Amino acid sequence: MVDIATRVHNHKWKIDPIVRSLIDTDFYKLLMCQSVFRNKPDTTVTFSLINRSADVPLAKMIDEGELREQLDHVRSLSLTRGESTWLRGNTFYGKRQMFRSDFMEWFEGMRLPPYTLERRGDQYELTFEGKWHEVMLWEIPALAILMELRGRAVLHQMGKFELEVLYARAMAKLWEKIERLRDLPDLKIADFGTRRRHSYLWQDWCVQAMTEGLGEAFIGTSNCLIAMKRDLEAVGTNAHELPMVYSALAPDDAALARAPYDVLADWHEEHSGNLRIILPDTYGTAGFLKNAPDWLAGWTGIRIDSGDPATGAETAIDWWKSRGEDPTEKLVIFSDGLDVEKIEELSHQFHGRVKASFGWGTLLTNDFRGLAPNDALAPFSLVCKAIAADGHPTVKLSDNPEKAMGPESEIARYKRVFGVGEQQRFEVVV
Amino acid sequence: MVDIATRVHNHKWKIDPIVRSLIDTDFYKLLMCQSVFRNKPDTTVTFSLINRSADVPLAKMIDEGELREQLDHVRSLSLTRGESTWLRGNTFYGKRQMFRSDFMEWFEGMRLPPYTLERRGDQYELTFEGKWHEVMLWEIPALAILMELRGRAVLHQMGKFELEVLYARAMAKLWEKIERLRDLPDLKIADFGTRRRHSYLWQDWCVQAMTEGLGEAFIGTSNCLIAMKRDLEAVGTNAHELPMVYSALAPDDAALARAPYDVLADWHEEHSGNLRIILPDTYGTAGFLKNAPDWLAGWTGIRIDSGDPATGAETAIDWWKSRGEDPTEKLVIFSDGLDVEKIEELSHQFHGRVKASFGWGTLLTNDFRGLAPNDALAPFSLVCKAIAADGHPTVKLSDNPEKAMGPESEIARYKRVFGVGEQQRFEVVV
Repeated sequence: MVDIATRVHNHKWKIDPIVRSLIDTDFYKLLMCQSVFRNKPDTTVTFSLINRSADVPLAKMIDEGELREQLDHVRSLSLTRGESTWLRGNTFYGKRQMFRSDFMEWFEGMRLPPYTLERRGDQYELTFEGKWHEVMLWEIPALAILMELRGRAVLHQMGKFELEVLYARAMAKLWEKIERLRDLPDLKIADFGTRRRHSYLWQDWCVQAMTEGLGEAFIGTSNCLIAMKRDLEAVGTNAHELPMVYSALAPDDAALARAPYDVLADWHEEHSGNLRIILPDTYGTAGFLKNAPDWLAGWTGIRIDSGDPATGAETAIDWWKSRGEDPTEKLVIFSDGLDVEKIEELSHQFHGRVKASFGWGTLLTNDFRGLAPNDALAPFSLVCKAIAADGHPTVKLSDNPEKAMGPESEIARYKRVFGVGEQQRFEVVV
Repeated sequence: MVDIATRVHNHKWKIDPIVRSLIDTDFYKLLMCQSVFRNKPDTTVTFSLINRSADVPLAKMIDEGELREQLDHVRSLSLTRGESTWLRGNTFYGKRQMFRSDFMEWFEGMRLPPYTLERRGDQYELTFEGKWHEVMLWEIPALAILMELRGRAVLHQMGKFELEVLYARAMAKLWEKIERLRDLPDLKIADFGTRRRHSYLWQDWCVQAMTEGLGEAFIGTSNCLIAMKRDLEAVGTNAHELPMVYSALAPDDAALARAPYDVLADWHEEHSGNLRIILPDTYGTAGFLKNAPDWLAGWTGIRIDSGDPATGAETAIDWWKSRGEDPTEKLVIFSDGLDVEKIEELSHQFHGRVKASFGWGTLLTNDFRGLAPNDALAPFSLVCKAIAADGHPTVKLSDNPEKAMGPESEIARYKRVFGVGEQQRFEVVV
C-alpha cells in the first residue's frame, strides 16, 4: 500500500529545507547567546563565512537562488512551543531553568536578521551584521546549509542505487569506528558535529549509532534539536567568539590583555560545575595560562581546540600542578580535528592522569572521505566567524597559525600584547 | 504520516512467509520439470535435504513448528494468473512458448506434495517422495526456507541498529565486489544464488545491485520471480538430478553407461542454442567427454560445477579441439563456489579462448561471512538431492569426492562403469 497523502504532501514542498528549527544548532550557541544578551546586549557584530578550502568552488557548485531559498527559510523560522517548553523545562548539566525567563521571552520572538550574499569569483561572500546575540545564531545554520548544499550538488549526479550504497558504506565506516571506540576504557565522548555535518538526517543517524553502540560512554550531542528528539544530553560550553569580541572592544592594550579573563569572569558568575571549561587558545594557550588569575585554576576543565592536542593537555596538567590543583580531578575536552586514531592515542596517553573527554566533530558526522568519485563528498574547512565588533576588527591567534585570523597589523599587536612568539603550524583538515 | 492500514495488515500475518510464490525458484527447475513431465511422468523419486555442515545444528537453532509452518505455507501456494501469463507469454532464451500448453495446464493446478520431517540429533531429516516432476519442485524452496530460518534465528538476537549496520556492511561488501567485476573485459555473469540465499529480499537487492552496477555484463537471474518482477532474463539449463535419476533407473551396467547420454538426447530433442549446455561432471568429466557421442560436441557449451574449474575448462577445450570444434565459439559456464577473486582469475585465464560466463551463487546472495558475531550468518553447505528413483538409490561421483553421494557399493559400481579412478579432493565451501 502506498501512502498517497504523504507522497502528495512531499511533492508540495518547493524546497527541501536543510535547517528546519532554530534549535537545530549547537547548545553552546544558546548558552553564549544568553550570556551576551545579558552582558553585551548593545554590541554590533559582523559574522562572515569563510571557505578555507579554495579547491572547493562553492559558487560554481551551488546555485545562488537555491542558497538564498535555504537562508530565507531559516529566517522564516521561530521557536516552536515544544522547543520553548524543552529549553525552559529541561535539565542541562544537572541544572533546571538554565535559560532565564527574560532570555526565553526574547528568544521566542526572535527571527534571524538579514544576511548579505555576494558572489566573488568561485566563492560566496556571506555576511551577517547586527546585534551580537542575534547574528551569532546564524553561524551554525549558515555552515550547515553551505555544507549540505555542496553535498546535494554531488548527490544529485548519483543514481538511486549508488546513493543506497553510498550510505551503506558510510554506515559501515562509522560503525567500525564505534566498534574500535568500544574498547577504550572510561571513554567519554560527545557529538560536536553539527556545523560541518553531511546532512541533518545523517547527523541524526550518527547520534543514534553512537547511542546504540557506545552506551554510557556516549555523553550527548551538541545539537539541541537532536538532543530533544532523542532524549539525550545537550552539551557544550563556550567558544572563541566570546574572547574575540570582548578583545575587539577593548579600548587599549591593557584592557586587551585583560579581556580574555573578563569574559570568563562573566561566565564564572553565570555558570558552575561542568560548564566552567576554559578555552585557552584564542591568543595562545601558554601565555593565557601563565597570566591567568588563580580562580581560573579552580575551574572544572579545559578544552583543547588547536595545536598539538597532547602538548596542550600536558601544558594544562603542568599548569594545574603549578597552581596546587590535582589534574586527576580535572576535565580535558579534546575537540580539534578528531578521528578514531587520535581519540585512541589521546585516550591511552591521558588515561588516569586527567578526566579526558572528546568532542567529536566533522569526522563523526561527515566522514564521506573516499566514498564518492573524486572524493567530491569529503568534508572541507568552512568556518563562520565574528570578524568585527562595533567597527573594530576581531583577531584570533590560536595555537596554530593556520587558524589565525584578523588584519595583519592587529595580529602583530595581539602577538605583542599576549606575548606570542613563533608558533608551530599544523595542517587544518576540517 | 503513518500508513496505519499497512501496519495493521502486516500484523495480521501469523507467519512471515519465506517463499511466497511457486516461481520463487530456479528457472532450470521448470525446464527440467517440463522435460520430466514429458519423458518420465511415472517415475517416483525421493528428495532428501542434507546439511553437509555438521557444525550448524539446525534442529537446535530452528523451531520445528516454525519450520513446518513455512513448509506448509509453500504447500498452500499455487501458480497465480500473472505468473502463469508470464511463463506462457514471455521469451526465454529468445524462444516464445518455451513451456508447452499441456505442461502449463498441469502446473497451474499443481500443489507441492507432502513432506516428511523428523528430528535426528541436532539435525532435521526432511524428505519428499512422489512423482519426480512434483517432488523436484521442493528442492529450491526447502533449501531457501532452511537457510533463511537459520538466518532469522541469528538476526532475532540483534538490535534494530545492529541490523541496519549489518545490511549496510553487506551492501558495501557486495558493491565492492561489483566494482571489481566492472573492470573485467567481456564479463558475462548471472545470479545463481536462489537456493542458499540469505533471504528473498536480500537476493532481490543483490540482483538490483548487479543490474545497476554491471549493466550489460549482468545477463540475468536464475530466480523466475525476480526475473519477472525486475524484467530480467531468467537463466539456467539443467542439473545433476537428470543423469542421476536416469542412471538409477538403468536396468544394467550397459544401460547405466548410456544413461548420461540418453538424458542429453532427450534434451537435444527439446532444446537448442544456449540451452544445449553439457553438465559433464556427474560421473567424472574426463570419462564423460571421452565416451561422448559426436553430436554432443556440437552443443553450445559446458557447465563446470565441481573440481578445479580451470582444469575442467582446459579439459573441455582439449575435447572440443579433438572433435574438430572451435573452442572460441563455445560457452563455458563456471558455477561452482565462485567469488570475485576466482571470477577474475578464470576470466583472465580464458579470455579470448572460450566464451566464458559465470553463474554466481551463494557468495553473491549470502556472503555474510564476517558480518555477525561468531560468524553466525556465514553460509553453509546445505543441499537437497534426489536420493532414490523407483526404489533404486541414486549416485553422484562429481569431480570432487567431497561432493560424492550414494551407497558405498553403488559408488564403487559407478566408478567401475564410468572408469573413474583416484580423484582430487577440494574443500566444499558453500
